[in-house]
Amino acid sequence: MKKVPLLAADWAPIVVLVRPQLAENIGMAARAMMNCGLTELRLVGPREPHLSDKAVAASSGAQAVLENARVFDSLPQALADVRLVLATTARRRDMTKPVHTPSKAVKLLRAAADRHQKAAVLFGAERTGLENDEIVSANGIIEIPLNPKHRSLNLSQAVLIVGYEWFKSRRTADASHLETGGSPPAAHAETEAFLGCLEEALAARGYFRWPDKEARMKRNLRNIFMRPALTSAEIRTLHAVVKKLTS
Amino acid sequence: MKKVPLLAADWAPIVVLVRPQLAENIGMAARAMMNCGLTELRLVGPREPHLSDKAVAASSGAQAVLENARVFDSLPQALADVRLVLATTARRRDMTKPVHTPSKAVKLLRAAADRHQKAAVLFGAERTGLENDEIVSANGIIEIPLNPKHRSLNLSQAVLIVGYEWFKSRRTADASHLETGGSPPAAHAETEAFLGCLEEALAARGYFRWPDKEARMKRNLRNIFMRPALTSAEIRTLHAVVKKLTS
Repeated sequence: MKKVPLLAADWAPIVVLVRPQLAENIGMAARAMMNCGLTELRLVGPREPHLSDKAVAASSGAQAVLENARVFDSLPQALADVRLVLATTARRRDMTKPVHTPSKAVKLLRAAADRHQKAAVLFGAERTGLENDEIVSANGIIEIPLNPKHRSLNLSQAVLIVGYEWFKSRRTADASHLETGGSPPAAHAETEAFLGCLEEALAARGYFRWPDKEARMKRNLRNIFMRPALTSAEIRTLHAVVKKLTS
Repeated sequence: MKKVPLLAADWAPIVVLVRPQLAENIGMAARAMMNCGLTELRLVGPREPHLSDKAVAASSGAQAVLENARVFDSLPQALADVRLVLATTARRRDMTKPVHTPSKAVKLLRAAADRHQKAAVLFGAERTGLENDEIVSANGIIEIPLNPKHRSLNLSQAVLIVGYEWFKSRRTADASHLETGGSPPAAHAETEAFLGCLEEALAARGYFRWPDKEARMKRNLRNIFMRPALTSAEIRTLHAVVKKLTS
């Protein structure tokens, strides 16, 4: 097959498929991306290879998206250079996060693109969706409005809805954005590094004293610091705060 | 399989698939309809039976839509009782017709529903789309905005986009809200009290060592913790964190 040229880089959001099960669904997601002018695909622990015949056939001409896709072992690796992360979910979670409709979410994504800041949208595995530990890494949630009695959506269809809203938003004026006073939003890896330091300092002082609650406590902490979409300068401030408090 | 109850009749538009080729696509279209609260399906000259195992499996729980579907020999028969007909097309036709985006089209469909007038949306065969003679039967055209270099859309995905816009058009809720998992947003005084504790702990350790920068440093800190609209539970967590770090 001939390589299809991708669109020029326009800081369109990266699509991250987390633990996708079927090659065919990866291909169909690539097709939906291409329909909507999205070209950067990242895969976290896919079960089947994304360049298999089944995936390529299902991509229906969007092979270039598959060929340029990158595979990662873990979600933090896939998000290391990303500054705005939104997670798609079909159902409500017991978690404190801003929840956006797709049409509102693309305004945030568009604002990030206008500032040349990488943004990503996470899609979970076909049957199970994203796990809470994965959602917690996001700055916000995208909930697709659907018939509450029949929410089950094919993976590529979820990608299509978000992509369609993205494409639709291409001509609209600038949405509200976060004024950051010169400092860019922190890269995901910066926020991760701070959370690592904080957890370490807390662990050393016996904060996680109930082993069965440790995961949940860490999730709550992570949620507090992921939600505000901290800037690089703010991450430096927080490092200094923890260092000072533990001095 | 158990019959899934349909939504109450709300004069949602009828989906008309014209000469669909594959049973699987009919099933997937039914699933997309159910996702969006559309329940009335009409088929014109389908090549494969819409109640075959393949169709039912692909419908993924939307079997009731298939069971209630009606098959017609010709498009005029399928549209006999319909008062507003919109035809979906992927490309421009040499034809004088109003062309609507999906979001504009659902306003017309919603207006018809409000008047208890039956409306229908036509979708053509997988490869060829609707023929000009079929489009001519419509009052208007729905053109889905997509990447002009890659417009090819799966049949069920075209149904999903129109259905999604239909479903969205009845939503009145805010576009974004904060999902707080049970805990209320913190009262302003709670956040203030936490910031007071944090500043005190930092001051005691010499964090604000340059008097002329103290106000700015406090403002930066405040900004970090005000922006995420913390919940009461999260404020309690942060109190515990500071207490532990300074222990």
